[in-house]
Amino acid sequence: WRGAPVFRSADGYFTFKPRGRLSLDWSGTDGSRFDARNIYGTEATDLRLGAEGTIGKLGYKLDVTFADNAAGVREAYLSYDTTLFGLPTEYYLGNRLRDRSIEGSGMLAREPFMERNAVAAVGAAYNGYFGLGGYVRTFGNNWHLGASITGDGVDNEGTASDSITYSIRGHVNPIKARQGFVHLGSWYYYETLGDDVATINNAPRIGQSFNDNLRVSSGAIADPTRDEAWGYEVGGVFRNFWSFGEYTKRRIDSDSIDVVERTATSISAGWLITGEKPGFSTRSGIWGSTRVLSPVTSGGWGAWEIAVRFDRYDFRDAPNGGDGRSDTVGLNWYINDWSRLMFNYVNWTTDNRVGSYRGFDAGNSFGFRAQVVF
Amino acid sequence: WRGAPVFRSADGYFTFKPRGRLSLDWSGTDGSRFDARNIYGTEATDLRLGAEGTIGKLGYKLDVTFADNAAGVREAYLSYDTTLFGLPTEYYLGNRLRDRSIEGSGMLAREPFMERNAVAAVGAAYNGYFGLGGYVRTFGNNWHLGASITGDGVDNEGTASDSITYSIRGHVNPIKARQGFVHLGSWYYYETLGDDVATINNAPRIGQSFNDNLRVSSGAIADPTRDEAWGYEVGGVFRNFWSFGEYTKRRIDSDSIDVVERTATSISAGWLITGEKPGFSTRSGIWGSTRVLSPVTSGGWGAWEIAVRFDRYDFRDAPNGGDGRSDTVGLNWYINDWSRLMFNYVNWTTDNRVGSYRGFDAGNSFGFRAQVVF
Amino acid sequence: WRGAPVFRSADGYFTFKPRGRLSLDWSGTDGSRFDARNIYGTEATDLRLGAEGTIGKLGYKLDVTFADNAAGVREAYLSYDTTLFGLPTEYYLGNRLRDRSIEGSGMLAREPFMERNAVAAVGAAYNGYFGLGGYVRTFGNNWHLGASITGDGVDNEGTASDSITYSIRGHVNPIKARQGFVHLGSWYYYETLGDDVATINNAPRIGQSFNDNLRVSSGAIADPTRDEAWGYEVGGVFRNFWSFGEYTKRRIDSDSIDVVERTATSISAGWLITGEKPGFSTRSGIWGSTRVLSPVTSGGWGAWEIAVRFDRYDFRDAPNGGDGRSDTVGLNWYINDWSRLMFNYVNWTTDNRVGSYRGFDAGNSFGFRAQVVF
Repeated sequence: WRGAPVFRSADGYFTFKPRGRLSLDWSGTDGSRFDARNIYGTEATDLRLGAEGTIGKLGYKLDVTFADNAAGVREAYLSYDTTLFGLPTEYYLGNRLRDRSIEGSGMLAREPFMERNAVAAVGAAYNGYFGLGGYVRTFGNNWHLGASITGDGVDNEGTASDSITYSIRGHVNPIKARQGFVHLGSWYYYETLGDDVATINNAPRIGQSFNDNLRVSSGAIADPTRDEAWGYEVGGVFRNFWSFGEYTKRRIDSDSIDVVERTATSISAGWLITGEKPGFSTRSGIWGSTRVLSPVTSGGWGAWEIAVRFDRYDFRDAPNGGDGRSDTVGLNWYINDWSRLMFNYVNWTTDNRVGSYRGFDAGNSFGFRAQVVF
Repeated sequence: WRGAPVFRSADGYFTFKPRGRLSLDWSGTDGSRFDARNIYGTEATDLRLGAEGTIGKLGYKLDVTFADNAAGVREAYLSYDTTLFGLPTEYYLGNRLRDRSIEGSGMLAREPFMERNAVAAVGAAYNGYFGLGGYVRTFGNNWHLGASITGDGVDNEGTASDSITYSIRGHVNPIKARQGFVHLGSWYYYETLGDDVATINNAPRIGQSFNDNLRVSSGAIADPTRDEAWGYEVGGVFRNFWSFGEYTKRRIDSDSIDVVERTATSISAGWLITGEKPGFSTRSGIWGSTRVLSPVTSGGWGAWEIAVRFDRYDFRDAPNGGDGRSDTVGLNWYINDWSRLMFNYVNWTTDNRVGSYRGFDAGNSFGFRAQVVF
Repeated sequence: WRGAPVFRSADGYFTFKPRGRLSLDWSGTDGSRFDARNIYGTEATDLRLGAEGTIGKLGYKLDVTFADNAAGVREAYLSYDTTLFGLPTEYYLGNRLRDRSIEGSGMLAREPFMERNAVAAVGAAYNGYFGLGGYVRTFGNNWHLGASITGDGVDNEGTASDSITYSIRGHVNPIKARQGFVHLGSWYYYETLGDDVATINNAPRIGQSFNDNLRVSSGAIADPTRDEAWGYEVGGVFRNFWSFGEYTKRRIDSDSIDVVERTATSISAGWLITGEKPGFSTRSGIWGSTRVLSPVTSGGWGAWEIAVRFDRYDFRDAPNGGDGRSDTVGLNWYINDWSRLMFNYVNWTTDNRVGSYRGFDAGNSFGFRAQVVF
């Protein structure tokens, strides 16, 4: 192995790879007309230990995060790789990220900004980003299709039936050449809600994850009966440039206030100044790792990337729903293939109709992150 | 190493083996006259990371489980192997499963059903299956004897003295031949209760672990002064067949309602259709791992096992104690030595006298589990 | 590797070392005039899993402790070793022990007694022993200097700005020869308090960590506006003898009761009977590991150490502050370089002015610990 260690039994039958992650932030906000939003501090956004490997054709993966002084299970699944009608196909049983939008489907630690975009946050299912259930993904030469049926997350109490999420996502690359590719994708999920779901709320943070007071409030929807969302993805890579746009609409039926729609749009673009190829995977349609041409830890300059993103959050279809926007400029310094430093500047506005921070507000958030992932 | 990795220093003095476990369930219940019991859903019943190894003759082991979104310490001990009067003897210091009944003493992940039997659940000490203290186990040619003195579990607050559990278990194999063996065992514990023990309750789940509403209620016993239990084990293995019966009686003295007895019986039998030897250990009298003749991951059929179990729970000696029974049919498919798929069908009745589900009730629970252990 | 495993990629660029720790206690107290203090029991004082290693010149470390049934992040940082003006210099980003006093700066598992001394406990910052932020340490031939700026710990909620701790510590060895050395050290920190800090309290345990009722109460100080502390260290090693003395004064400004001072003194000495060199590091001025000449696990006697410590706690400058003293005799048996058994006898007095245990009290605590660290 050239990087993180992978251990193999003499016959190659059993492999084991330890997994680790450190993501350490400093974040500050100013300019808000609410003092409680103008706060700054440090945070360990993700500290993980885990294991992955294979036993013959059977794969396993287990990741636990210890951020915020609690132990949270993330990836925890068994997998089996095979072919279906001659196409490479992967089956998963367990807990993993649902295939849903570009930035909702992949590891945050591989994505170009410190936080996931508005589409990932607004289009999330009641059961969140992760689901415990069965998954299948099939891959063509220039496309993939992923589907899943999942129940409540790993921390659910067994006092009522699970909410069930039926989810599907696919992408195609109509152009795929040496210089780059075009990505078109779409996804949909439908969710039946358990009896223990009394309300559906969603208040995404709009600055960095440190600041709990800086959120766009959707307004809780009581007595939900049905939950679904769909989304579109378009974008591509050309040499060391990339750009993606995403849109989502989530639709919640409710006994108390009829149908409510929540929408979000995210548009982003970036430039790897030092010439690296963007790490976006044409196989799965998500962000993978950036291969650094000249790592700092080998005496080089590392990889430098500058990126921008425009996010729009719109919950105004609900009586108490607010809206917000954030414009982000990010500067990433990839030390080597496993570590990077990030700086994000976010200019944001919120216009909430519930909670402690009502009415129009605007400000700036600054974030700095040091990260190692293996 | 042929399986999970074991690392050794050049001189063999220091060894280290990473440990991992994934146990992922789907479970559903129907037929109960209470709607809240007729629920279904997914659950991660056991997600573990750990380490074990040796430093010279000193052994260590540490296992942490992350199921239900909390971190729970399981095995956490130092060990020392030596001989006593010429007999192999193991000393343990720390937290581990007490030697108590067949299914209470061993790893659930090695046992033939998705849940431990009634005897393991009803005969458990106030301090639970695990105890923090000192253990010793001595092994003869066809017998073993284990004893322990243990205090409160690892999560106890230091505001009162520990309850102390004095525990002993032994087994003998009057017949032990190539074709099989006969197992006879017995155990006993006595528990002095700390000042912080106001009541003793016990409400074992009778279906699968997912369903929190499906339990047999013992009725809490206030002001307990003394706690003891004993049990008997009889059974054996013949070729690829096995059968075991267990019985326990627990006796709780109390200032408020005099002596209360709780009893349970469990009888089980199984057949390894594909010809494997049952994994029951004649050394320790517990279930060990099943060696698969033709692993699926090497192109074979794996091992198939069919098993049945009959469990009786009787708490009726207490004014508020209920009773219940469960009959289980299990089908196990061992993919290889580290992984298996399990299906359990449970037909059950409960007759509780306290709680939300009083009176006679009956129904069926279905469970499916995928499991990897190394 | 000769001890705990360190894995290296073929080019030596990436290294990985699993980390583990087990610390298992029995502790009992008698002689107090309060029954609730005369308690005994077992406790797992530290159960850790972690990882450390390097990626080129970049280091990483992550340690999580599972004692008391919760997951707590301890060491979690990235490091970079370089030279500054020709001097070896280490930079750290993340969570680690602040450089503050001899026994507050180092790993408890390397220190000669079961609990840290009075100076470590009384001089601790509001943010505790650990801080999330930036650290630098520079090393001379016979001195070191460490400084840090850290925010709230890893478990802080992002609802208010962090308290910020500015900390510095240095030591010098005016004599450093083959037979031993003299250690002189000093430290200081200044802390700006976040808006969420309503009171500052501190009630160090005076026996062993098991006993939650046996503490010296400082009396909570409301409306603190500023927090600072300083300390002095003097001591040394001669052959297989060692002795150290420490003093601290902490000064808390408050809107409600003006300035309050808290002081502590700790004096300790020890003798490694079997001739080992004390493990005190002249590089960092903290306790490191003891190299055992004849390990038990290699057929030897191990290392034996006898040590005494005198601790004084004085919170009487505050209206409700109490005081206390503890005299400790410790006997350590180092089995090998990674494991030891400890016995501590503590004779203590407390004179609290608040809480459940007011007035003069005295008693004895006995502690036993088994420990493995790698």
